Amino acid sequence: IKAGERNQLVELLKRWDPVDVMQLLTRLRLKHARKLFQWLPANPSIKVVAELRPEFRSILMEESTLEQFHDILDGLDPEDAVEILNEFPDDVADELIARLKDIDEIGTRGGYADDTAGRVMARKFVALPEHCTTGEAVAQMRAEADRIRKIFTVYVTDDEGKLTGTVEVGRLLLAPADTPLRDIVNRDVLTVSADTDQEEVLRLARKRDMRTVPVVSSEGHLIGRVTPKQLTRIASDEANEDMLLMSGVSGESRADDTVLRIVRRRLPWLLAGLVGASVAATVVGSYEDQLAEAAILAAFIPVTMSMAGNAGLQASAVAVQGIATGALWTGDIFFRLMKELAAALFNGAIAGTILGSLVLIASFVVPLEAPERLALATSLSLLCVTTLAAMVGATVPIILDKIGIDPAMAIGVFITSSNDVLGVLIFFLMATTFYLG
Amino acid sequence: IKAGERNQLVELLKRWDPVDVMQLLTRLRLKHARKLFQWLPANPSIKVVAELRPEFRSILMEESTLEQFHDILDGLDPEDAVEILNEFPDDVADELIARLKDIDEIGTRGGYADDTAGRVMARKFVALPEHCTTGEAVAQMRAEADRIRKIFTVYVTDDEGKLTGTVEVGRLLLAPADTPLRDIVNRDVLTVSADTDQEEVLRLARKRDMRTVPVVSSEGHLIGRVTPKQLTRIASDEANEDMLLMSGVSGESRADDTVLRIVRRRLPWLLAGLVGASVAATVVGSYEDQLAEAAILAAFIPVTMSMAGNAGLQASAVAVQGIATGALWTGDIFFRLMKELAAALFNGAIAGTILGSLVLIASFVVPLEAPERLALATSLSLLCVTTLAAMVGATVPIILDKIGIDPAMAIGVFITSSNDVLGVLIFFLMATTFYLG
Repeated sequence: IKAGERNQLVELLKRWDPVDVMQLLTRLRLKHARKLFQWLPANPSIKVVAELRPEFRSILMEESTLEQFHDILDGLDPEDAVEILNEFPDDVADELIARLKDIDEIGTRGGYADDTAGRVMARKFVALPEHCTTGEAVAQMRAEADRIRKIFTVYVTDDEGKLTGTVEVGRLLLAPADTPLRDIVNRDVLTVSADTDQEEVLRLARKRDMRTVPVVSSEGHLIGRVTPKQLTRIASDEANEDMLLMSGVSGESRADDTVLRIVRRRLPWLLAGLVGASVAATVVGSYEDQLAEAAILAAFIPVTMSMAGNAGLQASAVAVQGIATGALWTGDIFFRLMKELAAALFNGAIAGTILGSLVLIASFVVPLEAPERLALATSLSLLCVTTLAAMVGATVPIILDKIGIDPAMAIGVFITSSNDVLGVLIFFLMATTFYLG
Repeated sequence: IKAGERNQLVELLKRWDPVDVMQLLTRLRLKHARKLFQWLPANPSIKVVAELRPEFRSILMEESTLEQFHDILDGLDPEDAVEILNEFPDDVADELIARLKDIDEIGTRGGYADDTAGRVMARKFVALPEHCTTGEAVAQMRAEADRIRKIFTVYVTDDEGKLTGTVEVGRLLLAPADTPLRDIVNRDVLTVSADTDQEEVLRLARKRDMRTVPVVSSEGHLIGRVTPKQLTRIASDEANEDMLLMSGVSGESRADDTVLRIVRRRLPWLLAGLVGASVAATVVGSYEDQLAEAAILAAFIPVTMSMAGNAGLQASAVAVQGIATGALWTGDIFFRLMKELAAALFNGAIAGTILGSLVLIASFVVPLEAPERLALATSLSLLCVTTLAAMVGATVPIILDKIGIDPAMAIGVFITSSNDVLGVLIFFLMATTFYLG
């Protein structure tokens, strides 16, 4: 593949889906990917560029010429082209804008802040006045058919040009030709302003089940719309950030993150974990005399902590997700906790029995003092730890939600740390009672 | 709110968004939620029912009468009504079907397996023959306007009734009235069969950027379509399953899970964790003599394990997500790992320094033997553990992906367990070298 069979390869790739080509590129070594990308004729590469994530576009196209850029950008949807231009250094972008013919239609890059509706909105839309009839609307759109690629919604304005509502194209088509838009317009339309945060746009769109969200100026004039494609992108970014947050990584992850950014996003969580672990260490340290008496007890610290961590993580993940999706009936929490309790007792009993048996088996191989009592102490502590960790994991997210904190924060470092402390505490209580006592 | 101010409350709720009412209901106690639901007049309650998750519908409507059901189902989109009917016991469903007038239009519940395209597809669509002109198409749709609620896509069939492609309504409107559909039909349409798994449908729809996926019979006749609403629902179910899998919970979480189901979904992961922890315990056990000599060492086991766990989780979450979203350029992995390494060394150095300082400070309060050497040993081991755990976390998901295993499996139990073992091993190596040695 790497060698000179260029023509064959290009022929093959031409028939692939752009998404597949994109995935191939991200799995190749950068050097090969760049070469392959240079080989691709304009048509497939345009589609591939549209699929690529922003950070790769710049990496991949670093070695391309301005000519190639021009060909590619010219073939893209104007909105995608603007998005790519936004990522170039200003001088390159200006040069390219001067060469592109479609660009005044798009408007320049605007002065909107990152992650706002203004930054992600498309500036092309079809707006017609209220008094226009459906027949006139269709005629007018047909006259400009070559400038409209896809259309799903027509925006309707009043005499002063303010947005009053929307008409779906299907509606336009089904109504008799002499109906004024005024009569079929859907006035129950939610709008956002250009400086609305993009996540807020997504939240509103989801709540109202809207596919496209119109963006209006402070005077109520339509200035753009956030398209379904952008909404999907915002949604997936948001879901990814949540998942990383649960794993103790703040902010969005990018392939071109600097070392400093990686550190800044992870270190605070590691230090929070260190604080929790230090408390657990203090608990262990306070049992130093007992440990000196029976050093074997230290071997059970990893087991107790690991079970506490896993059981807590499971329960909290289910709770966090239940809250997020509405699958958790927080009004009926008592019944739910009883079920969690029963399941945790069962899991803990099984795990405890297995650990106890392992201790008894081990006592045949290595000399252990009073293996029966050690087995009893360790299995009982595993039962208690598993149950308690699951209870903490199931309850904390619900409490956080009630007091208005994002429950996703609860998973990971915080619940793990508190379960570590609980875990070693219970273990040493059991050990001193049943083994050393 | 709970007392008798029924009328006021109902008036208030009528003006709320259905989604908000739904969220209120899931946060109330079950008894109150049922009562409130009974109070709601048919109109808002219909919309609320459509928003509710399936498991709550049955809980909430348990005490409603057949009459109320009938009113509610009658007001819903036929597809939603069928979905709800599917959840009722057969005898109740049959009784209701007999009373509903729209039902033959929907067809009966079909014989499709759970989670297939056939089960989730809508059976209403507009299909027209290829030779039809756009003008005829619009006229025909207008004639049946009262049966069509929303329309975005027209399906086009050949003379034998086989699906040949789609025409978006916007396209229909922009083309001159005498254009035959044959000339504007988009033939590059992906179809699925009724027994295609719903996640496969979603994957295909995403890859091809399709909003609606047509479902065809084995003869190529259109039998239904998977709507955007259903695709969104499938996507969110899938994302939730992934997140739970990473937390060591298999399968979908439901509010009405039995205790046995909870156990079955969590116990295997707990036991896998127990196996890993037992290895770590064996490592600690093999240092029993050293521990007997300096029991204080046991206090650092929780710290080492917790840092290893957190650093590994962070790195693996970033890697897993990078693979899933295409943000990770696996072709250029060496450069990436160098950055991870640099960040991990930095994080580890900071955390190690803090821990070392804590040990030195603690030595003023409690008597510690050779606190300087203890501080050195513990901070060095924290540095090594953090670095190694991050490397393992960053590499394992990529390797799993290369050999074709879902990298999401790597997060959680497996990486945590291996990092636990590595953590205690490194710690005792450092401790014997720098503290006891």
